[in-house]
Amino acid sequence: MTVKAFGAYAGDKPLEPMDINRRSVGPHDVGIEIAFCGVCHSDIHQVRSEWAGTLYPCVPGHEIVGRVSAVGAHVSSHKVGDLVGVGCIVDSCKRCDDCSDGLENYCDHMVGTYNGPTPDAPGHTLGGYSQQIVVHERYVLRISHPEEQLAAVAPLLCAGITTYSPLRHWDVGPGHKVGVVGIGGLGHMGIKLANAMGAHVVAFTTSESKREAATALGAHEVVVSRNADEMAAHAGSLDFILNTVAAAHDLDAFFALLKRDGTMTLVGAPATPHPSPEVFSLIMKRRSLAGSMIGGIPETQEMLDFCAKHGIVADIELIRADGINEAYERMLKGDVKYRFVIDTASLAS
Amino acid sequence: MTVKAFGAYAGDKPLEPMDINRRSVGPHDVGIEIAFCGVCHSDIHQVRSEWAGTLYPCVPGHEIVGRVSAVGAHVSSHKVGDLVGVGCIVDSCKRCDDCSDGLENYCDHMVGTYNGPTPDAPGHTLGGYSQQIVVHERYVLRISHPEEQLAAVAPLLCAGITTYSPLRHWDVGPGHKVGVVGIGGLGHMGIKLANAMGAHVVAFTTSESKREAATALGAHEVVVSRNADEMAAHAGSLDFILNTVAAAHDLDAFFALLKRDGTMTLVGAPATPHPSPEVFSLIMKRRSLAGSMIGGIPETQEMLDFCAKHGIVADIELIRADGINEAYERMLKGDVKYRFVIDTASLAS
Repeated sequence: MTVKAFGAYAGDKPLEPMDINRRSVGPHDVGIEIAFCGVCHSDIHQVRSEWAGTLYPCVPGHEIVGRVSAVGAHVSSHKVGDLVGVGCIVDSCKRCDDCSDGLENYCDHMVGTYNGPTPDAPGHTLGGYSQQIVVHERYVLRISHPEEQLAAVAPLLCAGITTYSPLRHWDVGPGHKVGVVGIGGLGHMGIKLANAMGAHVVAFTTSESKREAATALGAHEVVVSRNADEMAAHAGSLDFILNTVAAAHDLDAFFALLKRDGTMTLVGAPATPHPSPEVFSLIMKRRSLAGSMIGGIPETQEMLDFCAKHGIVADIELIRADGINEAYERMLKGDVKYRFVIDTASLAS
Repeated sequence: MTVKAFGAYAGDKPLEPMDINRRSVGPHDVGIEIAFCGVCHSDIHQVRSEWAGTLYPCVPGHEIVGRVSAVGAHVSSHKVGDLVGVGCIVDSCKRCDDCSDGLENYCDHMVGTYNGPTPDAPGHTLGGYSQQIVVHERYVLRISHPEEQLAAVAPLLCAGITTYSPLRHWDVGPGHKVGVVGIGGLGHMGIKLANAMGAHVVAFTTSESKREAATALGAHEVVVSRNADEMAAHAGSLDFILNTVAAAHDLDAFFALLKRDGTMTLVGAPATPHPSPEVFSLIMKRRSLAGSMIGGIPETQEMLDFCAKHGIVADIELIRADGINEAYERMLKGDVKYRFVIDTASLAS
């Protein structure tokens, strides 16, 4: 089946309309009519070949929501007409310890929603900037939000789970004081989620101008991290820090804010490494620096259900598919609150 | 009370005999006749003023074993004649969360056994290279090893607890594959302890020549870390790594050996920072880099009891006090298997 999509033929070319092929719906597949697709910073890195190994044509997009249009003979978990989502993962080995533990995101054979290996033409996966997608049922999520929120649900599939998973893994909840560093696509979800989990949330930003916005998102306190006095007021007081900043920065300044046994978890990967943290920052209070990458399928479902229950969606700006190149330029300037989402109906016109 | 000791009057002077004063035994104090004192690498850093803030005269030594010679009126936990030990801590606030949790090592007001603040003359604590010491009962440990092992017990008070505490905190035990990086004063204890805890122990060394020694200490496998093939054979297989190396080195090479959710804990603090670890090393498998500093008093007692039960002591070379300057030079060349211990009887002659 040929469907319309938006993608790039080379790393130095803008995205443009293209026709792509989707496989027919196999016995365990779900066919999805895509309604909206969020625009993640990873999309830019991949399509512009800033990471190694981009295959072309490249159709990005891994924050996919839509409606089931077909199901394979053996599919029992989804039916035609259901609202569903697809995140960063469309396949994995299904046999290793990671897959058995529902942490397909850590499977060595995890297949990304775009640029991953597949027997389907053209030999690599093509993502959600398109009208339709066909995905194995295991990697398709149920959405129970009201349909009118569907566009704003899309970013939960990557930005939501990427922040939800570490907050849950490190047991964030009532009685905890939690820092969220960076108030962008990931950080704005981290603030909302940590707040809904019952934690006392301190947002850290380099911009004085984001103070009010962070409060509106659910931060109980906002610290401008360039202000040493504001930082010092929180010394040794945080149980956990979710660090969403993808630019190299001084980690020690944040370690100093952690209690004994506190952990700072990085979910952003900077192009150049962070300055090396002081070993004493870790040793003196038995602190940890950790990393976390998206989340597994069961916890992605749990996250979506949690968000539906708590009325959580992303703050978005809806765009047409042909506005994607301009949207990328604005993202690179930090000019988005907080996520662009493509209305894929615009692909048809 | 005036007692004989060995210490330095300045950072650029060798250690020499000196007379120092010990306070009289207060109601909660234990007076200890020191039999042996281990020689820790920290002693060199401190006495040579390689760390900030060394106060002189400086008498190092925080791996102290001996016999109780006097107890205060309110002391119930120790009696005259008991074999006891004193480690890196001789006081703390006794009121904070860390002290309440028995983790006095993380108390903001922890007082080190030497160079710590004290009302006693000369205003800073003086360590175990001396004939006697007076310590609050809370920081005095019971020793149940046979007396003939006493000299080899001394290093347990720092090298032992510094490795035992993280192995316990990160739940090392049967069914775990544990790496110990570095085979020196700390590492040789880490190998013995991890083995006794029931783990499968892989020792990592830069020296082909340490292969047999590591096996003799209890390592089930030995990897020469300069050998890429040997390293690759353990990729993604370790549950925990105890990294005892105090020289800056490539941490990513060891992260690659950790399983998903694995932790590498640093107990050595290099003079120059480690090269910054790759964020992807942490993110891809939800790995952690942590630090740990000595251990609390209750767990130090637990460690001593564990070692007595399992027949564990340090491998030592006994020296006279006046051999300390030469011992330091040998330590700096790595020429000790694996700990020097001062026979404090030599102070009298």
